[in-house]
Amino acid sequence: MFDVFGTLVDWRTRIADAFDASGLDGDPAELADDWRKRYVPILAEVNGQQRPWGNFDELHFVTLDDLLRERGLEASDETRQRLVAAWHALDPWPDVKDGLEQLRRTHVVATLSNGHVAMLLDLARHGDLRFDCVLSAELVRAYKPEPAVYLSAARLLTLDPGEVMLVAAHPWDLKGARAAGLRSALVRRPLEYGPNSPQRDDADADHVVDDLPELAARLSSRG
Amino acid sequence: MFDVFGTLVDWRTRIADAFDASGLDGDPAELADDWRKRYVPILAEVNGQQRPWGNFDELHFVTLDDLLRERGLEASDETRQRLVAAWHALDPWPDVKDGLEQLRRTHVVATLSNGHVAMLLDLARHGDLRFDCVLSAELVRAYKPEPAVYLSAARLLTLDPGEVMLVAAHPWDLKGARAAGLRSALVRRPLEYGPNSPQRDDADADHVVDDLPELAARLSSRG
Repeated sequence: MFDVFGTLVDWRTRIADAFDASGLDGDPAELADDWRKRYVPILAEVNGQQRPWGNFDELHFVTLDDLLRERGLEASDETRQRLVAAWHALDPWPDVKDGLEQLRRTHVVATLSNGHVAMLLDLARHGDLRFDCVLSAELVRAYKPEPAVYLSAARLLTLDPGEVMLVAAHPWDLKGARAAGLRSALVRRPLEYGPNSPQRDDADADHVVDDLPELAARLSSRG
Repeated sequence: MFDVFGTLVDWRTRIADAFDASGLDGDPAELADDWRKRYVPILAEVNGQQRPWGNFDELHFVTLDDLLRERGLEASDETRQRLVAAWHALDPWPDVKDGLEQLRRTHVVATLSNGHVAMLLDLARHGDLRFDCVLSAELVRAYKPEPAVYLSAARLLTLDPGEVMLVAAHPWDLKGARAAGLRSALVRRPLEYGPNSPQRDDADADHVVDDLPELAARLSSRG
């Protein structure tokens, strides 16, 4: 099962493009980073029941509004809608389409994203990515790293948690998966936050790879 | 959204094969028909809360047990497991793989089956069928024709019910979809129950077609 934003698709390039096209003041890439960094905190509010469930579009409208207000920027409803919609048309990293196909030969391949089902489906169609199944935190109305998200996905696949591996670029997500009993693989995405992205590692992951074909090779050689 | 058993896949041939291989007494096709006809009644028991939620494998074990008992047949656990597992490896009707691809060019294509997610995924992989999304009654733990099943699927796609069309070979399912506000298309499957299958029609359906390419042509010509 794959995390999506940052792991399979490059959110920063297209979100920066969307800021650029919006005419809003500021460095587009910095605006994209600012928006994205509001993601984990607002999910924590939902998981902590300080905020009712909202899907990613709804939460993106909230965090965009916060960003604009804090920066003293004005944006029309149409501009806001375009920016929120941009998250539905992000390009996959170059290894992803073929890597997923390779993995599908030997494994069931699914998403497990905090993005809602309709959004994941738009991203899969946009990138021509083939999954056996689109699973989302939306199905249990809680967000990763809540154990319920990982466990519900395993249950829907009628697998034990230990038979499922989460692949993600983010150690916090892999840690959540392991806490729920899943296996874990870190895929490095050194451009997620542009050229100065943090270097990530995860000593507890079953695998640390540079791309999906490397993961496919490792998993198929294990039989 | 597509119903699956009978609509996209031919359950009777492989289930009859499985009875044949089991060595159980009786005409294999008749046994397959007998098993299948216990499907709607047991779903009604779940929907009526006379029986707790069970997925299709669990319900198939129950209906198989009833069938065997009523016919005075004995079968080992292994034989029962093989028969239940046969429902995960049914072949699609010949028009389905290409028809779904044609429809995917202009529409989002999903399952909406009473079968559980893991089973639908096995069937899709077995037949190399590509869906944008695998949706199931399992996600709401109620069975079609309960309105909640159709409505939850539209909600997950972030569509109004009237923007969604259910395609099925069974008028009862299309009627359920319409009651929930969906559009409906009947695809004729004159071999679902072998050469003596009932002829089906549905005067209230938006479309009645003989195969999926015919549906794709109709929907794309409507723009």
